[in-house]
Amino acid sequence: MSELNATQIFYHEGTVTRDERAKLLKQSGATLWFTGLSGSGKSTIAVALEQVLIARGHAAYTLDGDNIRFGLNAGPKILMDTRKYSEESAKKFGLAFSAADREENIRRIGEVSKLFADSGLFALTSFISPYRKDRDAARAIHADNKAGAIPFIEVFVNTPIGTCEERDPKGLYKQARAAVAAGKGMGFTGVDDPYEPPLNPELTFDAATQTVQEGVAMIINYLQSKGLVRS
Amino acid sequence: MSELNATQIFYHEGTVTRDERAKLLKQSGATLWFTGLSGSGKSTIAVALEQVLIARGHAAYTLDGDNIRFGLNAGPKILMDTRKYSEESAKKFGLAFSAADREENIRRIGEVSKLFADSGLFALTSFISPYRKDRDAARAIHADNKAGAIPFIEVFVNTPIGTCEERDPKGLYKQARAAVAAGKGMGFTGVDDPYEPPLNPELTFDAATQTVQEGVAMIINYLQSKGLVRS
Repeated sequence: MSELNATQIFYHEGTVTRDERAKLLKQSGATLWFTGLSGSGKSTIAVALEQVLIARGHAAYTLDGDNIRFGLNAGPKILMDTRKYSEESAKKFGLAFSAADREENIRRIGEVSKLFADSGLFALTSFISPYRKDRDAARAIHADNKAGAIPFIEVFVNTPIGTCEERDPKGLYKQARAAVAAGKGMGFTGVDDPYEPPLNPELTFDAATQTVQEGVAMIINYLQSKGLVRS
Repeated sequence: MSELNATQIFYHEGTVTRDERAKLLKQSGATLWFTGLSGSGKSTIAVALEQVLIARGHAAYTLDGDNIRFGLNAGPKILMDTRKYSEESAKKFGLAFSAADREENIRRIGEVSKLFADSGLFALTSFISPYRKDRDAARAIHADNKAGAIPFIEVFVNTPIGTCEERDPKGLYKQARAAVAAGKGMGFTGVDDPYEPPLNPELTFDAATQTVQEGVAMIINYLQSKGLVRS
Protein backbone atom coordinates (compact mmCIF):
# COMPACT_ATOMS: atom_id res chain seq x y z
CA MET A 1 0.00 0.00 0.00
CA SER A 2 1.64 3.25 -1.07
CA GLU A 3 1.54 6.19 1.33
CA LEU A 4 -0.15 9.10 -0.33
CA ASN A 5 1.92 12.23 -0.09
CA ALA A 6 0.17 15.54 0.47
CA THR A 7 2.01 16.95 -2.55
CA GLN A 8 0.22 14.43 -4.80
CA ILE A 9 -3.13 16.03 -3.93
CA PHE A 10 -4.60 18.52 -6.37
CA TYR A 11 -7.92 20.23 -6.05
CA HIS A 12 -9.54 23.34 -7.44
CA GLU A 13 -11.77 26.08 -6.02
CA GLY A 14 -15.48 25.36 -5.83
CA THR A 15 -17.52 22.18 -5.65
CA VAL A 16 -17.52 19.25 -8.04
CA THR A 17 -19.83 19.93 -10.99
CA ARG A 18 -22.42 17.65 -12.57
CA ASP A 19 -20.21 17.57 -15.68
CA GLU A 20 -17.23 16.26 -13.70
CA ARG A 21 -19.37 13.51 -12.19
CA ALA A 22 -20.84 12.68 -15.59
CA LYS A 23 -17.36 12.36 -17.08
CA LEU A 24 -16.34 9.87 -14.39
CA LEU A 25 -19.52 7.80 -14.45
CA LYS A 26 -20.10 8.18 -18.20
CA GLN A 27 -23.71 9.13 -17.46
CA SER A 28 -25.39 12.18 -15.98
CA GLY A 29 -28.20 10.52 -14.05
CA ALA A 30 -31.99 10.74 -13.96
CA THR A 31 -34.92 9.77 -11.79
CA LEU A 32 -37.26 7.06 -13.04
CA TRP A 33 -40.44 7.44 -11.01
CA PHE A 34 -42.60 4.29 -11.09
CA THR A 35 -46.20 4.82 -10.01
CA GLY A 36 -49.13 2.40 -9.93
CA LEU A 37 -51.44 0.39 -7.71
CA SER A 38 -50.30 -2.08 -5.08
CA GLY A 39 -49.56 -5.35 -6.89
CA SER A 40 -49.22 -3.65 -10.29
CA GLY A 41 -45.64 -4.85 -10.71
CA LYS A 42 -43.76 -1.60 -10.05
CA SER A 43 -41.01 -3.28 -8.02
CA THR A 44 -40.65 -6.17 -10.46
CA ILE A 45 -39.98 -3.87 -13.37
CA ALA A 46 -37.83 -1.45 -11.32
CA VAL A 47 -35.63 -4.29 -10.05
CA ALA A 48 -35.32 -5.76 -13.56
CA LEU A 49 -34.41 -2.34 -14.98
CA GLU A 50 -31.82 -1.79 -12.26
CA GLN A 51 -30.20 -5.13 -13.08
CA VAL A 52 -30.12 -4.39 -16.79
CA LEU A 53 -28.71 -0.89 -16.25
CA ILE A 54 -25.95 -2.27 -14.04
CA ALA A 55 -25.21 -5.12 -16.45
CA ARG A 56 -24.81 -2.47 -19.16
CA GLY A 57 -22.31 -0.55 -17.01
CA HIS A 58 -24.68 2.13 -15.69
CA ALA A 59 -24.81 3.00 -11.99
CA ALA A 60 -28.33 2.81 -10.57
CA TYR A 61 -30.08 2.52 -7.22
CA THR A 62 -33.66 1.68 -6.31
CA LEU A 63 -35.53 3.43 -3.53
CA ASP A 64 -38.43 1.29 -2.36
CA GLY A 65 -40.35 0.23 0.72
CA ASP A 66 -37.51 -2.03 1.83
CA ASN A 67 -34.90 0.68 2.24
CA ILE A 68 -37.16 3.68 2.95
CA ARG A 69 -39.99 2.51 5.17
CA PHE A 70 -37.69 1.26 7.95
CA GLY A 71 -35.24 4.10 7.56
CA LEU A 72 -35.82 7.64 6.35
CA ASN A 73 -39.61 7.35 6.47
CA ALA A 74 -40.05 5.04 9.44
CA GLY A 75 -43.04 5.37 11.73
CA PRO A 76 -42.80 6.62 15.32
CA LYS A 77 -42.83 3.11 16.78
CA ILE A 78 -39.89 1.88 14.71
CA LEU A 79 -37.94 5.05 15.45
CA MET A 80 -38.45 4.66 19.18
CA ASP A 81 -38.02 0.90 19.44
CA THR A 82 -35.13 0.09 17.17
CA ARG A 83 -33.13 3.25 16.75
CA LYS A 84 -33.38 4.78 20.19
CA TYR A 85 -34.37 8.23 19.06
CA SER A 86 -36.07 10.55 21.53
CA GLU A 87 -39.79 9.97 21.92
CA GLU A 88 -40.37 13.61 21.09
CA SER A 89 -38.68 13.57 17.69
CA ALA A 90 -39.96 10.08 16.85
CA LYS A 91 -43.58 11.11 17.50
CA LYS A 92 -43.17 14.47 15.83
CA PHE A 93 -41.46 13.29 12.64
CA GLY A 94 -42.26 9.58 12.24
CA LEU A 95 -44.60 8.96 9.30
CA ALA A 96 -48.03 7.39 9.70
CA PHE A 97 -50.89 7.43 7.17
CA SER A 98 -52.70 10.75 7.45
CA ALA A 99 -52.97 12.88 4.30
CA ALA A 100 -50.13 15.12 5.52
CA ASP A 101 -47.98 12.08 6.35
CA ARG A 102 -48.51 10.58 2.88
CA GLU A 103 -47.61 13.87 1.26
CA GLU A 104 -44.44 14.08 3.35
CA ASN A 105 -43.59 10.46 2.52
CA ILE A 106 -43.54 11.24 -1.20
CA ARG A 107 -41.87 14.63 -0.66
CA ARG A 108 -38.88 13.03 1.11
CA ILE A 109 -38.58 10.35 -1.59
CA GLY A 110 -38.69 13.07 -4.25
CA GLU A 111 -35.90 14.99 -2.52
CA VAL A 112 -33.71 11.91 -2.05
CA SER A 113 -34.19 10.70 -5.63
CA LYS A 114 -33.18 14.18 -6.78
CA LEU A 115 -29.96 13.95 -4.74
CA PHE A 116 -29.18 10.54 -6.26
CA ALA A 117 -29.88 11.74 -9.80
CA ASP A 118 -27.76 14.83 -9.09
CA SER A 119 -24.90 12.56 -8.00
CA GLY A 120 -25.04 11.01 -11.49
CA LEU A 121 -26.88 7.78 -10.71
CA PHE A 122 -30.16 6.52 -12.10
CA ALA A 123 -32.55 6.75 -9.16
CA LEU A 124 -35.46 4.32 -9.51
CA THR A 125 -38.37 4.92 -7.13
CA SER A 126 -41.03 2.29 -6.59
CA PHE A 127 -43.95 3.61 -4.54
CA ILE A 128 -47.70 3.71 -5.21
CA SER A 129 -47.57 7.53 -5.03
CA PRO A 130 -51.32 7.78 -5.77
CA TYR A 131 -51.77 11.56 -5.78
CA ARG A 132 -51.01 13.60 -8.88
CA LYS A 133 -50.14 16.67 -6.82
CA ASP A 134 -47.42 14.84 -4.88
CA ARG A 135 -45.87 13.34 -8.02
CA ASP A 136 -45.97 16.73 -9.70
CA ALA A 137 -44.19 18.23 -6.68
CA ALA A 138 -41.44 15.59 -7.04
CA ARG A 139 -41.18 16.49 -10.72
CA ALA A 140 -41.05 20.21 -9.89
CA ILE A 141 -38.13 19.85 -7.48
CA HIS A 142 -36.14 18.05 -10.20
CA ALA A 143 -36.87 20.90 -12.62
CA ASP A 144 -36.05 23.53 -10.00
CA ASN A 145 -32.30 22.93 -9.72
CA LYS A 146 -29.67 25.68 -9.68
CA ALA A 147 -27.23 23.80 -11.91
CA GLY A 148 -29.95 22.92 -14.46
CA ALA A 149 -32.99 20.64 -14.51
CA ILE A 150 -32.48 16.99 -13.57
CA PRO A 151 -34.34 14.52 -15.82
CA PHE A 152 -37.51 13.13 -14.22
CA ILE A 153 -39.20 10.27 -16.06
CA GLU A 154 -42.61 9.18 -14.80
CA VAL A 155 -43.37 5.55 -15.61
CA PHE A 156 -47.04 4.70 -15.15
CA VAL A 157 -47.39 1.00 -14.33
CA ASN A 158 -50.93 0.72 -15.65
CA THR A 159 -52.13 -2.67 -14.48
CA PRO A 160 -55.92 -2.99 -14.15
CA ILE A 161 -57.07 -3.14 -10.54
CA GLY A 162 -58.76 -6.52 -11.22
CA THR A 163 -55.36 -8.01 -12.08
CA CYS A 164 -53.68 -6.38 -9.07
CA GLU A 165 -56.39 -7.63 -6.74
CA GLU A 166 -56.23 -11.12 -8.20
CA ARG A 167 -52.47 -11.23 -7.61
CA ASP A 168 -52.67 -9.57 -4.16
CA PRO A 169 -49.15 -10.80 -3.27
CA LYS A 170 -49.27 -9.46 0.28
CA GLY A 171 -52.99 -10.08 0.93
CA LEU A 172 -53.54 -6.34 1.30
CA TYR A 173 -56.60 -6.03 -0.97
CA LYS A 174 -58.28 -8.84 0.99
CA GLN A 175 -57.57 -7.00 4.24
CA ALA A 176 -58.82 -3.72 2.79
CA ARG A 177 -62.05 -5.25 1.45
CA ALA A 178 -62.68 -6.90 4.81
CA ALA A 179 -62.05 -3.61 6.62
CA VAL A 180 -64.46 -1.77 4.32
CA ALA A 181 -67.09 -4.55 4.72
CA ALA A 182 -66.74 -4.20 8.51
CA GLY A 183 -67.42 -0.46 8.12
CA LYS A 184 -63.92 0.54 9.22
CA GLY A 185 -61.93 1.23 6.07
CA MET A 186 -58.17 1.60 5.93
CA GLY A 187 -57.62 4.23 3.23
CA PHE A 188 -56.19 1.63 0.85
CA THR A 189 -55.42 2.90 -2.66
CA GLY A 190 -57.92 1.58 -5.23
CA VAL A 191 -60.29 0.28 -2.55
CA ASP A 192 -61.22 3.17 -0.27
CA ASP A 193 -58.70 5.78 -1.35
CA PRO A 194 -58.25 7.12 -4.90
CA TYR A 195 -55.45 6.42 -7.36
CA GLU A 196 -55.02 9.39 -9.68
CA PRO A 197 -53.43 8.15 -12.93
CA PRO A 198 -50.72 10.35 -14.50
CA LEU A 199 -52.03 12.65 -17.22
CA ASN A 200 -48.76 12.91 -19.14
CA PRO A 201 -46.39 10.17 -18.05
CA GLU A 202 -43.20 9.87 -20.11
CA LEU A 203 -43.86 6.12 -20.34
CA THR A 204 -46.70 3.71 -19.65
CA PHE A 205 -46.19 0.03 -18.95
CA ASP A 206 -49.23 -2.13 -19.46
CA ALA A 207 -48.79 -5.34 -17.53
CA ALA A 208 -51.87 -6.84 -19.24
CA THR A 209 -50.19 -6.81 -22.66
CA GLN A 210 -46.43 -6.32 -22.02
CA THR A 211 -43.89 -8.64 -20.42
CA VAL A 212 -41.34 -7.31 -17.94
CA GLN A 213 -38.66 -7.78 -20.62
CA GLU A 214 -40.66 -5.66 -23.06
CA GLY A 215 -41.20 -3.01 -20.38
CA VAL A 216 -37.49 -2.82 -19.60
CA ALA A 217 -36.64 -2.65 -23.31
CA MET A 218 -39.14 0.20 -23.74
CA ILE A 219 -37.50 2.15 -20.90
CA ILE A 220 -33.93 1.52 -22.10
CA ASN A 221 -34.91 2.62 -25.61
CA TYR A 222 -36.45 5.78 -24.17
CA LEU A 223 -33.26 6.51 -22.17
CA GLN A 224 -31.19 5.94 -25.33
CA SER A 225 -33.41 8.29 -27.34
CA LYS A 226 -32.76 10.99 -24.71
CA GLY A 227 -29.01 10.33 -24.72
CA LEU A 228 -29.11 9.22 -21.07
CA VAL A 229 -27.64 5.75 -21.65
CA ARG A 230 -25.19 4.41 -24.20
CA SER A 231 -26.49 2.43 -27.17
CA MET B 1 -29.37 4.79 -32.21
CA SER B 2 -29.97 1.04 -32.09
CA GLU B 3 -33.42 -0.19 -31.02
CA LEU B 4 -33.07 -2.45 -28.04
CA ASN B 5 -34.88 -5.71 -28.56
CA ALA B 6 -36.67 -7.29 -25.62
CA THR B 7 -34.77 -10.50 -26.28
CA GLN B 8 -31.47 -8.72 -25.52
CA ILE B 9 -32.64 -8.13 -21.96
CA PHE B 10 -31.42 -10.49 -19.26
CA TYR B 11 -32.17 -10.24 -15.60
CA HIS B 12 -32.13 -12.58 -12.64
CA GLU B 13 -34.39 -13.11 -9.64
CA GLY B 14 -33.88 -10.84 -6.65
CA THR B 15 -32.44 -7.40 -6.19
CA VAL B 16 -29.02 -6.12 -7.18
CA THR B 17 -26.46 -6.92 -4.48
CA ARG B 18 -23.81 -4.68 -2.95
CA ASP B 19 -21.20 -6.93 -4.60
CA GLU B 20 -22.68 -6.36 -8.06
CA ARG B 21 -22.62 -2.59 -7.53
CA ALA B 22 -19.07 -2.76 -6.17
CA LYS B 23 -17.93 -4.69 -9.24
CA LEU B 24 -19.34 -2.03 -11.56
CA LEU B 25 -18.07 0.99 -9.61
CA LYS B 26 -14.83 -0.70 -8.48
CA GLN B 27 -15.57 0.48 -4.95
CA SER B 28 -18.07 -0.55 -2.29
CA GLY B 29 -18.80 2.85 -0.74
CA ALA B 30 -18.63 4.36 2.73
CA THR B 31 -19.86 7.37 4.66
CA LEU B 32 -17.34 9.99 5.73
CA TRP B 33 -19.01 11.99 8.47
CA PHE B 34 -17.34 15.37 9.04
CA THR B 35 -18.20 17.01 12.36
CA GLY B 36 -16.94 20.23 13.93
CA LEU B 37 -17.82 23.81 14.84
CA SER B 38 -19.20 26.38 12.42
CA GLY B 39 -16.20 27.83 10.56
CA SER B 40 -13.95 24.87 11.40
CA GLY B 41 -13.38 24.06 7.74
CA LYS B 42 -15.58 20.96 7.39
CA SER B 43 -16.90 21.94 3.98
CA THR B 44 -13.48 22.99 2.69
CA ILE B 45 -11.96 19.61 3.46
CA ALA B 46 -15.06 17.67 2.34
CA VAL B 47 -15.14 19.46 -1.02
CA ALA B 48 -11.39 18.96 -1.50
CA LEU B 49 -11.73 15.26 -0.65
CA GLU B 50 -14.65 14.85 -3.07
CA GLN B 51 -12.59 16.42 -5.87
CA VAL B 52 -9.60 14.20 -5.16
CA LEU B 53 -11.76 11.05 -4.97
CA ILE B 54 -13.39 11.88 -8.31
CA ALA B 55 -10.05 12.76 -9.91
CA ARG B 56 -8.83 9.32 -8.79
CA GLY B 57 -11.84 7.66 -10.44
CA HIS B 58 -13.98 7.16 -7.33
CA ALA B 59 -17.65 8.14 -7.28
CA ALA B 60 -18.51 10.45 -4.39
CA TYR B 61 -21.20 12.90 -3.35
CA THR B 62 -21.30 15.54 -0.64
CA LEU B 63 -24.38 16.20 1.46
CA ASP B 64 -24.21 19.66 2.98
CA GLY B 65 -26.31 22.67 3.87
CA ASP B 66 -26.58 23.69 0.23
CA ASN B 67 -28.38 20.59 -0.99
CA ILE B 68 -30.12 19.52 2.24
CA ARG B 69 -31.33 22.66 3.99
CA PHE B 70 -33.48 23.84 1.10
CA GLY B 71 -34.61 20.35 0.17
CA LEU B 72 -35.04 17.30 2.37
CA ASN B 73 -34.66 19.26 5.61
CA ALA B 74 -36.26 22.56 4.64
CA GLY B 75 -38.17 24.60 7.18
CA PRO B 76 -41.96 25.09 7.07
CA LYS B 77 -41.68 28.50 5.41
CA ILE B 78 -39.57 27.25 2.50
CA LEU B 79 -41.83 24.24 2.03
CA MET B 80 -44.94 26.41 1.86
CA ASP B 81 -43.52 29.27 -0.19
CA THR B 82 -41.39 27.64 -2.82
CA ARG B 83 -42.60 24.10 -3.22
CA LYS B 84 -46.33 24.47 -2.76
CA TYR B 85 -46.77 21.74 -0.21
CA SER B 86 -49.84 21.75 2.00
CA GLU B 87 -49.62 24.01 5.02
CA GLU B 88 -50.41 21.04 7.23
CA SER B 89 -47.52 18.85 6.13
CA ALA B 90 -45.12 21.80 5.86
CA LYS B 91 -45.82 22.86 9.43
CA LYS B 92 -45.84 19.32 10.75
CA PHE B 93 -42.63 18.11 9.10
CA GLY B 94 -40.55 21.19 8.25
CA LEU B 95 -37.43 21.42 10.42
CA ALA B 96 -36.79 24.34 12.75
CA PHE B 97 -34.27 24.48 15.62
CA SER B 98 -35.81 22.77 18.66
CA ALA B 99 -33.91 19.85 20.19
CA ALA B 100 -36.26 17.38 18.48
CA ASP B 101 -35.86 19.18 15.14
CA ARG B 102 -32.07 19.10 15.39
CA GLU B 103 -32.14 15.39 16.20
CA GLU B 104 -34.40 14.74 13.22
CA ASN B 105 -32.14 16.86 10.98
CA ILE B 106 -29.16 14.61 11.72
CA ARG B 107 -31.28 11.44 11.64
CA ARG B 108 -32.44 12.14 8.07
CA ILE B 109 -28.88 12.95 6.97
CA GLY B 110 -27.70 9.71 8.57
CA GLU B 111 -30.35 7.72 6.70
CA VAL B 112 -29.62 9.37 3.35
CA SER B 113 -25.85 8.98 3.69
CA LYS B 114 -26.44 5.30 4.43
CA LEU B 115 -28.46 4.94 1.20
CA PHE B 116 -25.67 6.63 -0.79
CA ALA B 117 -22.99 4.45 0.79
CA ASP B 118 -25.17 1.40 0.15
CA SER B 119 -25.42 2.40 -3.51
CA GLY B 120 -21.61 2.17 -3.66
CA LEU B 121 -20.71 5.86 -3.52
CA PHE B 122 -18.60 7.69 -0.98
CA ALA B 123 -21.09 9.83 0.92
CA LEU B 124 -19.44 12.88 2.50
CA THR B 125 -21.56 14.70 5.07
CA SER B 126 -20.63 18.18 6.23
CA PHE B 127 -22.77 19.33 9.16
CA ILE B 128 -21.87 20.64 12.63
CA SER B 129 -23.73 17.65 14.17
CA PRO B 130 -22.83 18.79 17.69
CA TYR B 131 -24.43 16.02 19.76
CA ARG B 132 -22.61 12.75 20.34
CA LYS B 133 -25.89 10.83 20.65
CA ASP B 134 -27.08 11.91 17.20
CA ARG B 135 -23.76 11.06 15.52
CA ASP B 136 -23.75 7.71 17.31
CA ALA B 137 -27.28 7.04 16.00
CA ALA B 138 -26.06 7.75 12.45
CA ARG B 139 -23.18 5.33 13.04
CA ALA B 140 -25.57 2.71 14.43
CA ILE B 141 -27.84 2.73 11.38
CA HIS B 142 -24.80 2.10 9.16
CA ALA B 143 -23.83 -0.86 11.34
CA ASP B 144 -27.41 -2.15 11.44
CA ASN B 145 -27.75 -3.23 7.80
CA LYS B 146 -29.24 -6.53 6.65
CA ALA B 147 -26.65 -7.10 3.93
CA GLY B 148 -23.72 -6.30 6.27
CA ALA B 149 -22.39 -3.19 8.01
CA ILE B 150 -21.69 -0.14 5.84
CA PRO B 151 -18.40 1.64 6.70
CA PHE B 152 -18.92 4.82 8.73
CA ILE B 153 -15.87 7.01 9.21
CA GLU B 154 -16.19 9.92 11.62
CA VAL B 155 -13.79 12.76 10.83
CA PHE B 156 -13.48 15.25 13.67
CA VAL B 157 -12.55 18.67 12.29
CA ASN B 158 -10.92 19.88 15.47
CA THR B 159 -10.37 23.58 14.93
CA PRO B 160 -10.15 25.66 18.14
CA ILE B 161 -13.22 27.85 18.65
CA GLY B 162 -10.96 30.94 18.79
CA THR B 163 -9.87 30.27 15.21
CA CYS B 164 -13.43 29.54 14.04
CA GLU B 165 -14.70 32.72 15.65
CA GLU B 166 -11.87 34.77 14.18
CA ARG B 167 -12.70 33.47 10.68
CA ASP B 168 -16.50 33.74 11.17
CA PRO B 169 -17.07 33.53 7.37
CA LYS B 170 -20.84 34.08 7.65
CA GLY B 171 -20.81 36.48 10.62
CA LEU B 172 -22.71 33.95 12.70
CA TYR B 173 -20.52 34.08 15.83
CA LYS B 174 -20.88 37.84 15.87
CA GLN B 175 -24.67 37.51 15.65
CA ALA B 176 -24.72 34.86 18.35
CA ARG B 177 -22.54 36.91 20.75
CA ALA B 178 -24.78 39.94 20.18
CA ALA B 179 -27.90 37.86 20.83
CA VAL B 180 -26.43 36.48 24.06
CA ALA B 181 -25.33 39.99 25.15
CA ALA B 182 -28.90 41.19 24.54
CA GLY B 183 -30.14 38.39 26.81
CA LYS B 184 -31.88 36.55 23.97
CA GLY B 185 -29.54 33.77 22.89
CA MET B 186 -29.92 31.73 19.71
CA GLY B 187 -28.71 28.27 20.68
CA PHE B 188 -25.56 28.64 18.58
CA THR B 189 -23.06 25.80 18.87
CA GLY B 190 -19.96 26.84 20.82
CA VAL B 191 -21.57 30.06 22.06
CA ASP B 192 -24.79 29.19 23.87
CA ASP B 193 -25.18 25.55 22.88
CA PRO B 194 -22.64 22.77 23.50
CA TYR B 195 -20.41 20.98 20.98
CA GLU B 196 -19.69 17.46 22.18
CA PRO B 197 -16.40 16.34 20.60
CA PRO B 198 -16.21 12.74 19.34
CA LEU B 199 -14.67 10.32 21.84
CA ASN B 200 -13.38 7.85 19.26
CA PRO B 201 -13.37 9.41 15.80
CA GLU B 202 -11.69 7.34 13.10
CA LEU B 203 -9.77 10.47 12.09
CA THR B 204 -9.06 13.93 13.49
CA PHE B 205 -8.11 16.89 11.36
CA ASP B 206 -6.41 19.72 13.20
CA ALA B 207 -6.78 22.87 11.18
CA ALA B 208 -4.30 24.67 13.47
CA THR B 209 -1.42 22.40 12.41
CA GLN B 210 -2.55 20.63 9.19
CA THR B 211 -3.18 22.04 5.72
CA VAL B 212 -6.23 20.94 3.73
CA GLN B 213 -3.88 18.96 1.46
CA GLU B 214 -2.47 17.12 4.45
CA GLY B 215 -5.97 16.43 5.76
CA VAL B 216 -7.11 15.00 2.44
CA ALA B 217 -3.93 12.87 2.21
CA MET B 218 -4.59 11.56 5.72
CA ILE B 219 -8.13 10.53 4.77
CA ILE B 220 -7.10 8.94 1.45
CA ASN B 221 -4.37 6.97 3.23
CA TYR B 222 -6.91 5.79 5.79
CA LEU B 223 -9.31 4.69 3.03
CA GLN B 224 -6.43 2.84 1.32
CA SER B 225 -5.47 1.11 4.56
CA LYS B 226 -9.05 -0.15 4.83
CA GLY B 227 -9.11 -1.29 1.20
CA LEU B 228 -11.87 1.21 0.36
CA VAL B 229 -9.96 3.04 -2.39
CA ARG B 230 -7.30 1.91 -4.85
CA SER B 231 -3.64 2.72 -4.18
